Amino acid sequence: MNTFGNKFRISIFGESHGQMIGVVVDGVPAGIPLSEEDFTEDLSRRKSGAFGTTPRVESDIAQIQSGIFNGHTTGAPICLTFANKNRISTDYIQFETHPRPGHADFTCSSKYKGYSDIRGGGHHSGRVTIGLVAAGVIAKKIIEPISVYASVIEIGGTKQWGSLIEKAKNAGDSLGGIIECRANEMPVGIGEPFFDSLESKLAHIIFSIPGVRGIEFGDGFAAAKMMGSQHNDPFVSSEGKTIKNGSGGINGGISNGNELIFRIAVKPTSSISLPQNTYNFSSGKVEELKVEGRHDTCFALRVPVIVEAATAIVLADMLV
Amino acid sequence: MNTFGNKFRISIFGESHGQMIGVVVDGVPAGIPLSEEDFTEDLSRRKSGAFGTTPRVESDIAQIQSGIFNGHTTGAPICLTFANKNRISTDYIQFETHPRPGHADFTCSSKYKGYSDIRGGGHHSGRVTIGLVAAGVIAKKIIEPISVYASVIEIGGTKQWGSLIEKAKNAGDSLGGIIECRANEMPVGIGEPFFDSLESKLAHIIFSIPGVRGIEFGDGFAAAKMMGSQHNDPFVSSEGKTIKNGSGGINGGISNGNELIFRIAVKPTSSISLPQNTYNFSSGKVEELKVEGRHDTCFALRVPVIVEAATAIVLADMLV
Amino acid sequence: MNTFGNKFRISIFGESHGQMIGVVVDGVPAGIPLSEEDFTEDLSRRKSGAFGTTPRVESDIAQIQSGIFNGHTTGAPICLTFANKNRISTDYIQFETHPRPGHADFTCSSKYKGYSDIRGGGHHSGRVTIGLVAAGVIAKKIIEPISVYASVIEIGGTKQWGSLIEKAKNAGDSLGGIIECRANEMPVGIGEPFFDSLESKLAHIIFSIPGVRGIEFGDGFAAAKMMGSQHNDPFVSSEGKTIKNGSGGINGGISNGNELIFRIAVKPTSSISLPQNTYNFSSGKVEELKVEGRHDTCFALRVPVIVEAATAIVLADMLV
Amino acid sequence: MNTFGNKFRISIFGESHGQMIGVVVDGVPAGIPLSEEDFTEDLSRRKSGAFGTTPRVESDIAQIQSGIFNGHTTGAPICLTFANKNRISTDYIQFETHPRPGHADFTCSSKYKGYSDIRGGGHHSGRVTIGLVAAGVIAKKIIEPISVYASVIEIGGTKQWGSLIEKAKNAGDSLGGIIECRANEMPVGIGEPFFDSLESKLAHIIFSIPGVRGIEFGDGFAAAKMMGSQHNDPFVSSEGKTIKNGSGGINGGISNGNELIFRIAVKPTSSISLPQNTYNFSSGKVEELKVEGRHDTCFALRVPVIVEAATAIVLADMLV
Repeated sequence: MNTFGNKFRISIFGESHGQMIGVVVDGVPAGIPLSEEDFTEDLSRRKSGAFGTTPRVESDIAQIQSGIFNGHTTGAPICLTFANKNRISTDYIQFETHPRPGHADFTCSSKYKGYSDIRGGGHHSGRVTIGLVAAGVIAKKIIEPISVYASVIEIGGTKQWGSLIEKAKNAGDSLGGIIECRANEMPVGIGEPFFDSLESKLAHIIFSIPGVRGIEFGDGFAAAKMMGSQHNDPFVSSEGKTIKNGSGGINGGISNGNELIFRIAVKPTSSISLPQNTYNFSSGKVEELKVEGRHDTCFALRVPVIVEAATAIVLADMLV
Repeated sequence: MNTFGNKFRISIFGESHGQMIGVVVDGVPAGIPLSEEDFTEDLSRRKSGAFGTTPRVESDIAQIQSGIFNGHTTGAPICLTFANKNRISTDYIQFETHPRPGHADFTCSSKYKGYSDIRGGGHHSGRVTIGLVAAGVIAKKIIEPISVYASVIEIGGTKQWGSLIEKAKNAGDSLGGIIECRANEMPVGIGEPFFDSLESKLAHIIFSIPGVRGIEFGDGFAAAKMMGSQHNDPFVSSEGKTIKNGSGGINGGISNGNELIFRIAVKPTSSISLPQNTYNFSSGKVEELKVEGRHDTCFALRVPVIVEAATAIVLADMLV
Repeated sequence: MNTFGNKFRISIFGESHGQMIGVVVDGVPAGIPLSEEDFTEDLSRRKSGAFGTTPRVESDIAQIQSGIFNGHTTGAPICLTFANKNRISTDYIQFETHPRPGHADFTCSSKYKGYSDIRGGGHHSGRVTIGLVAAGVIAKKIIEPISVYASVIEIGGTKQWGSLIEKAKNAGDSLGGIIECRANEMPVGIGEPFFDSLESKLAHIIFSIPGVRGIEFGDGFAAAKMMGSQHNDPFVSSEGKTIKNGSGGINGGISNGNELIFRIAVKPTSSISLPQNTYNFSSGKVEELKVEGRHDTCFALRVPVIVEAATAIVLADMLV
Repeated sequence: MNTFGNKFRISIFGESHGQMIGVVVDGVPAGIPLSEEDFTEDLSRRKSGAFGTTPRVESDIAQIQSGIFNGHTTGAPICLTFANKNRISTDYIQFETHPRPGHADFTCSSKYKGYSDIRGGGHHSGRVTIGLVAAGVIAKKIIEPISVYASVIEIGGTKQWGSLIEKAKNAGDSLGGIIECRANEMPVGIGEPFFDSLESKLAHIIFSIPGVRGIEFGDGFAAAKMMGSQHNDPFVSSEGKTIKNGSGGINGGISNGNELIFRIAVKPTSSISLPQNTYNFSSGKVEELKVEGRHDTCFALRVPVIVEAATAIVLADMLV
């Protein structure tokens, strides 16, 4: 179901190549100042057009349809919509029978019996994350003074990726990357031991973001190689600060007041210009597929602001 | 909240050192044969007593309190209870003011204002996972013919860990490890694109298991270092089989009929015999803490059957 | 929260005097034929303009924004929007401090700290039920061959109400009424004993409809005056048909295959032209209030199609 | 599903003739004093043995299995169990094929394919409401200073029912009744406009109580016969007090600070000693059925404390 959250709840709708996509945000306390301009910065951070991302350009202006009155939230659900203007749908027809490797073409057409809107990835498109980013803008206001910041820390296995992207782009290939997210000014006590640990809720929403392959908190996978005496993290102050924060700010599923830290692995963009030999369900044979269209060389570059939004949404849901 | 699932729903209760712990399993279809013996194998797999695990021994016999009639499920909620017999509670008193590094002592006493039952980890104890394992036994029956299998694939950073555990045990230290889980006979179509992707639901429940630091699907974190042409996974048959299953059996949040594969990182046991210097909230100073009690050298060894259960629970919830 | 349903889920948004109101319908199976024309009949049944209803006329044309492709549902969320064109907002300013008896003016301005959009009843307006009716159109398709039919059976305490409405209208007063709803071709087995009995789910959504004061199933309140030998309803066939269906088609919270029957009490329209003496929170005195605006003499006349929709939504949620 | 509530959540389990019945109560704030004695009064109010109720006597002593430490709630789930001692199961065998009119025998055996535990009504038994009453004891502590009080106001259509019960009992027949529930010290603002109006939540849980046929708030069904000028209820003070509270303390789904008032209709006990002619699914003929067993002449007498509990549970869920 296309809904996330209990008290702060978001519902997304829309397809990449429909008339609009949008999000309904419910559970927003009354009295928060909010205007369409508040969305500009985060929306532009996820927007296409930057180096290494797809040349499809959308204006991505949030239109507030409900829940705001006299410049403030009213407590009623906020519906935000975004017009889809720049649609080239003919690109997608062949994928119904000749599904792209790494995409949802095959699983969707199976699950939805051939009725799903495959154009531009339909409801699965990365474009749908615009609703997440917009809801995140509201969530960030709710969770103040907590601040969330995410950034790309590695692409293609390296920390200095400039020339790598250029090369991959020219080769018609793509690259993955690692995003790190941190939240500061975390209070002690966010999270429920079973089954809504803070890690559980964060991982739940993070794995909704298309292309995420893994998530780790604090020392993460490296912790599995440590001894307890190395990984354990003694307290050093009455606020609960620890020496090295190897648990990423969470103990027993509950925030411990240290910085929240996690990293996610984003796969390389599945759509590549290089020809791929893959099964054609119409001919019954493995055949060459060329994915034309406009695509990111490394869509991980656009993911940080989405991760920030997802994190803020979880925190808002647990704090409201 | 201590509940997981929508249609197949489990609620756990109980503390490590209370009279009993238990689980209520709701949404079980009527007519499934079920007896107390069905729980024996999986419960013994998670039970303490094995090499590298704590010497605390519990009989762990499932007592069926409801939902079964004439040897079959009735469709009513199934309550399973487990007596706590072997309790040594005096071990835990000091931790209220001198919290153990890596444990929930500090976060729980903050969140629950000093009222939480800290004995044996209370409701946070690994012992509470017995309810998960028991619910998993029922879930495994529901999801047939899907079979789930998890195993330890690495401890302390190595695949051959025998002597490592011996050494850590003698040193009063502990070890972490990596668990891999696979599910076979997966149908196509399990999972919802937003926000209940199959990865989302699995990660949600997996991060409820105490001590999990990370999760990755298919190629996982390695995918972030690959190019699209390496990570992409062409289809080769009309059933949707792919060449190398780098996505771990999931595309766009929906199972693609290939084997489901994921790995999780388990931290080293936080309770170690080695003395640790950590903040004492009573004295206001960093002081040496010695954690006596009986503890696993490597509790990752007990986690596979818990991961299997968690996986089966998610699949049952999405299939019922 | 503005969401109803578990598997068939609707989320409504919008205010009476905002730009649009709408509904997101999730959990709709793929492959159902659906066009904007399908909504016309039910929307016109609830529309204003009929005798005894408000002269405010809206075109009420459903605009499908997502979830439909090539004339069929895709399995993705369906967003339907309705433009608000005919807004006269100046009518409502005084009610913030001089709240109308029977309306949500006072409770909303308390709950939402003065930030709620009081114009036209804002998010509380009867107009918001247009989303319910539209979702009901989809639900009715899903529950086929079950058919749902509701009608007004009494207004102002009588079964022949024509002249009564005329009189009330001329007097600047209003009338309430009783709606009866029936569903045919009900299968046996819909409903959960605790806590999601069929009555529970129906009553839950019915009491979301503004102005409902009571609901009763089968013999309803009359059953409280009967003896068991009178109320009991023997079975007469192998399909479970009963003699007089005094339970309204439900036993133990579960449909028994007989016709589903319930009645609801709708209060008289709260907005009346007659002056009312009520507390003015600004002056601190009881003062005369005149509610101008355009209002239904008897909005119960518009409720049947809303009740049908609500019923179909519950059945769809329990059947999907 | 056998769970109610979002933040204050109860899950019930157990069958009338199993070993125990119980309830898990989650979301209870830490630090509330609670002992087994706290349950005595309310449990004895619903207990069998009083005049007009069944001679089956159970001790109904609450056993706290978890969530309490040092006499206070810990914030972890509270499991309460109640032993079933006084079971005579042979009474029930015939009802599988010759279902009792008014009972869930037919719907349950259809829904659960013959696997349901029909003894004593199984999971449908009125006995299961003991869990509701116990959870209500906790809820009542949470909602303080709000107080809830319910009572029987009418039996068999009259306010003075003493001789009526005697007569019905001797005749082997049964009686229904009306319960009225009031809550005082209500704050303004409890309830959500859509779809979790205060009436919606209350009606939802009330219709889980076996035998409820209707519910009405404030003026209830009488409101449908009034004119707006009669039903409207002007405010008279700055606290929002109204003249006659015809809306039962709720406007627009939100509590308005006046007394909460509603009434429910309880059907006559379905189990009567009088012979009934009803379909026998085994013989395929309408045949005489005699329901022996021990049954209430008027179980409405036991319902008030259950209604109080249900009301407190809803208020706790909306206040926590």
